[in-house]
Amino acid sequence: MNRIIECVPNFSVSQQQDPEVYQQLVDTANSVKGCVLFDAQTDGSHNRCVFTVMGKPESVEEAAFLLAKKASETIDMTKHVGQHPRMGATDVIPFIPMSNVSVQECVEISKRVAERLWKELGIPSFLYEDSATRPERRNLATCRKGQFEGMPEKLLQPEWAPDYGERKIHPTAGITAVGARMPLVAFNVNLATSDVSIADRIAKAIRASGGGFRSCKAIGIKLEERNIAQVSMNMVNYEDTPLYFAYEMIKTLAERYGTSVVGSEIVGLTPAAALIDCADFYLKLENFDKKTQVTEYGLLNTSWEQSNEDGRNDSKGL
Amino acid sequence: MNRIIECVPNFSVSQQQDPEVYQQLVDTANSVKGCVLFDAQTDGSHNRCVFTVMGKPESVEEAAFLLAKKASETIDMTKHVGQHPRMGATDVIPFIPMSNVSVQECVEISKRVAERLWKELGIPSFLYEDSATRPERRNLATCRKGQFEGMPEKLLQPEWAPDYGERKIHPTAGITAVGARMPLVAFNVNLATSDVSIADRIAKAIRASGGGFRSCKAIGIKLEERNIAQVSMNMVNYEDTPLYFAYEMIKTLAERYGTSVVGSEIVGLTPAAALIDCADFYLKLENFDKKTQVTEYGLLNTSWEQSNEDGRNDSKGL
Repeated sequence: MNRIIECVPNFSVSQQQDPEVYQQLVDTANSVKGCVLFDAQTDGSHNRCVFTVMGKPESVEEAAFLLAKKASETIDMTKHVGQHPRMGATDVIPFIPMSNVSVQECVEISKRVAERLWKELGIPSFLYEDSATRPERRNLATCRKGQFEGMPEKLLQPEWAPDYGERKIHPTAGITAVGARMPLVAFNVNLATSDVSIADRIAKAIRASGGGFRSCKAIGIKLEERNIAQVSMNMVNYEDTPLYFAYEMIKTLAERYGTSVVGSEIVGLTPAAALIDCADFYLKLENFDKKTQVTEYGLLNTSWEQSNEDGRNDSKGL
Repeated sequence: MNRIIECVPNFSVSQQQDPEVYQQLVDTANSVKGCVLFDAQTDGSHNRCVFTVMGKPESVEEAAFLLAKKASETIDMTKHVGQHPRMGATDVIPFIPMSNVSVQECVEISKRVAERLWKELGIPSFLYEDSATRPERRNLATCRKGQFEGMPEKLLQPEWAPDYGERKIHPTAGITAVGARMPLVAFNVNLATSDVSIADRIAKAIRASGGGFRSCKAIGIKLEERNIAQVSMNMVNYEDTPLYFAYEMIKTLAERYGTSVVGSEIVGLTPAAALIDCADFYLKLENFDKKTQVTEYGLLNTSWEQSNEDGRNDSKGL
């Protein structure tokens, strides 16, 4: 059974502004066996980059630490300028379960990495998202408020002691948010109206903060080029709040406001399960077990490279 | 990019009736590197077993040949008794694309294996399904009609020369059907009526043979234990005829006959894509590209074992 997690660390450096440091981070990610640098996004005006590392939990855990170490050796936050809010050379390290790993295991990984950041590098950290030790720390923006420059003062406030480390930032690497979360699905639903106030009202109704679905964040926006309104969502836990909950409620509310749904979109990646669960709902499937009935899950759990080398394998049913 | 195919050969032997021969086939499947014996079903009254071998195309091709060779050495069709229709020691060898392989490539594989069956083992074969050289040979039952005992005579008919080999069966191994096909999804839709004649009429309307969907086979049956009628389908190419085509048409026809759909089921395995395409339809997704946006396809295309051994990897976006 292949166990896979994802880590999406954010660093306060960009290929555009500091290509050498950026390349050292890429090389560090590529130096760890058992995981791969799946994607890397770099933004010059934000002066920030986002890596996606995938692989075996122990490999990804090690890669996350080594990347934070390299960032602490090469990035000086006292000189960092960029448009994106940030508080550390390694700003945030989320661990995300992908295959045969629970969120709880990712929480444990986040705590071990946070401990090493402090003990080996002297970098304090907040635990956020599902690793948070108190409700207000779940939210990254709340943790990061004040940014790198305001952190020395913030850490002295009674309620803002770091989860790991003392009440002072690392002089050049700042402080890092470390946590575990479910994969996020960016899901937008387009309405047959140009009236963005309708999208606003629907967004408020369906999101957790408005009494709506617990794992749905939503805002109303205008798609200027198409002259239509859109309900733009982050589905932060598709197991808790399935995509079809949001879609069906938006459909119902659109009708209530005299309009309708013209389409939807998924931005970026989604786990197959988020969509398979929708098919299960709309086809009224009975007793469908995706983990055993969807071929790809079986394929992901098969070790092709290792198969048969010692004359036996993972075959089922024998 | 990992390329994976499936092969589901059927052999005229069972663990129940001949455990030693059965075990030799299992051992043969397990002896080939780069593929795994994913599943094995054996039926004593049919005196037949069905293996599911998955892996790299070249490995699965080799495993299929070695299995047919072992079957020809260990099974004597002149002594075979069983309820299931059969014409050879290796009765049928279908190759099925799973990941990053086309049906056309599986057709090529089927032809190479059929050629080796004749040249190296003296076993003739019919090409069937998508490998068929004429329309009536697409259908396995048509090829197999007459069974092992009737084959010597059948092969002498003008239109029934084997695709590979001469017009005579192998004395003990008979003749084999070899072909390529898409993965089949067994999809059933349950109706809110006990009147099986309604399920019959719907089945006739939606299946290819009744002027319905090209890649849908359907019959009406009664689920005695629940006292409801069911439209039982084989979706033989979910890319050609998506599951939601069948589901929506059944829903419409059920209403026309004064009843409704109460649920559906998928029996056994399905590729994720067959269900993701349904979610795409029901959520009205715009511009969704499952091959790049569904995480699991990316995971399947990543070589974890080999990553970083030579200091580089498959990372994207760099």
